[in-house]
Amino acid sequence: MSESRPRIGIIGTGAIGGFYGLMLARAGYDVHFLLRSEYSAVVENGLVVNSAQHGSLKLQPVQAYRDAEQMPPCDWLLVGAKSTNNAALVPAIRAAAAPDAKVVLLQNGLGIEDGLRPLLPSNLHLLGGLCFICAHRSAMGVIEHEALGGINIAYHSGPADGQEAQMSLVQEGVSMFKAAGIDSTAMADLAQARWQKLVWNAPYNGLSVLLGAGTKPLMENPDSLALVRAIMEETFAAATACGCQLPEVLVDRMLVATSRMPDYLPSMYHDFAHRRPMELEAIYAAPLAAAAQAGCAMPKTEALLQALRFLEARNLDR
Amino acid sequence: MSESRPRIGIIGTGAIGGFYGLMLARAGYDVHFLLRSEYSAVVENGLVVNSAQHGSLKLQPVQAYRDAEQMPPCDWLLVGAKSTNNAALVPAIRAAAAPDAKVVLLQNGLGIEDGLRPLLPSNLHLLGGLCFICAHRSAMGVIEHEALGGINIAYHSGPADGQEAQMSLVQEGVSMFKAAGIDSTAMADLAQARWQKLVWNAPYNGLSVLLGAGTKPLMENPDSLALVRAIMEETFAAATACGCQLPEVLVDRMLVATSRMPDYLPSMYHDFAHRRPMELEAIYAAPLAAAAQAGCAMPKTEALLQALRFLEARNLDR
Repeated sequence: MSESRPRIGIIGTGAIGGFYGLMLARAGYDVHFLLRSEYSAVVENGLVVNSAQHGSLKLQPVQAYRDAEQMPPCDWLLVGAKSTNNAALVPAIRAAAAPDAKVVLLQNGLGIEDGLRPLLPSNLHLLGGLCFICAHRSAMGVIEHEALGGINIAYHSGPADGQEAQMSLVQEGVSMFKAAGIDSTAMADLAQARWQKLVWNAPYNGLSVLLGAGTKPLMENPDSLALVRAIMEETFAAATACGCQLPEVLVDRMLVATSRMPDYLPSMYHDFAHRRPMELEAIYAAPLAAAAQAGCAMPKTEALLQALRFLEARNLDR
Repeated sequence: MSESRPRIGIIGTGAIGGFYGLMLARAGYDVHFLLRSEYSAVVENGLVVNSAQHGSLKLQPVQAYRDAEQMPPCDWLLVGAKSTNNAALVPAIRAAAAPDAKVVLLQNGLGIEDGLRPLLPSNLHLLGGLCFICAHRSAMGVIEHEALGGINIAYHSGPADGQEAQMSLVQEGVSMFKAAGIDSTAMADLAQARWQKLVWNAPYNGLSVLLGAGTKPLMENPDSLALVRAIMEETFAAATACGCQLPEVLVDRMLVATSRMPDYLPSMYHDFAHRRPMELEAIYAAPLAAAAQAGCAMPKTEALLQALRFLEARNLDR
């Protein structure tokens, strides 16, 4: 474990974990990947990222593990698994973490660090990472990187004492990603970073499931576009009510950025299609509860959650 | 055309027109049916209603017509066609109407009489009929009557002068249906009657399409039930804002009644499944516009309409 080149562990090598892990490994970092169902395929064929931006990239051999106990102690742990069962990740995080390791949750939604914190040793730093990226797994060990890729990082809790120490640690993470060619921004306020990302996730994730449509058709139809905007505006207002003043232009900027993206099916669409649990708690229920606590109604977002919960109950029941 | 037994014409012999027409014919009324795609089947095999309440009923021969010009002048015209293209029904109504005929729109939604009135001769009475019935076509000329059957009637416009004359005419219609064994109520206020029915249609019609589910699963899942209730309450509040004070217990009463019904797929579900236009204008857009005019927001209902319009655009486009 060298000072200048921290060792990185990827907990959950899906589209997100796989993409960032491969980019960091290509930049010379010592990256170790925890895998489950894709272990054999990745050991045999390597990890592939087909990137619209970087071309076709392949990492082989991959430092791959089935069991976190076998991983060397990592200075940074990037958690790319779904937020639906974070408690189950704790043993792997404990096993792979170096003392004072930085654990970054590359997950969407609100309140997920609060849920995980009590389960982690107090010597671990916990951070949040908000990924602005269009990527999905297309096969075992194969990731399609369709657009974007930036990552906003903020500190949640741990041994770093005071704003300055925390920001310096966040800055370390930002520098690491930048060294790998990834756009990255240090955020002073994790809640703010999470609400900002939610303004995008709240409309597109749920509507992709409810309407069976990616971003392009949702942006092209005037009615779904109006619904997207309304849910963005409810989320923006909820953030404000919760004390996070987001940039005024955020909604318009996100609409423009999304309309310029190639058609994209968010992760929730794939989760539903594959009958996996959807991240309804972190992306919808937690923000709705926080907004209600602050006296702010989000009726269209709530209707969307209610519809999604009905669909999920039927989907997982079958 | 006798005084005591008015002649009845059915414009649009689907589930609604077919059911009420058959019941009236069985009660001895002189009923004439305008048909389109089902004409040959009905002439050959008659009209069948499989009723959970009345058993299996068959009308044969049927006084069936392809062309309204061939129909004898009718004292009552019951319009059972969809509200999505009412202007196209005007020639048939004109052709089949006796002088001073009573035209009853057995359709859901708001404002449909206002749309049709300017297209009708001024000597025709125009009424609205709100059908509380679970029925659907299962084959050419075959109607499944699953539950209920009552019909609330109110006067819209025409030669009847003053409240008393109008109510006496409405009462004639009520008596006619009652003589055919159908529960029927005279309503003094058509807008009130239409809003009342909308409290049921607004949640179930749209959600059956959006969630691909009938009333039973929608009532059994706590999240969809909460959404059903919320949309009912928005509709109730909109009615109040528009000056129609509905009975306080209406929402609870409808929820209880629906939970006791057998599983039912509303007409909008069938329309969507068969790629026919949905009655989005009458059931959603018109009430939303009226509510907005009265300063009342219906955010969950609006979200539902926006989602449905997206689905309809894709459905009709294919």
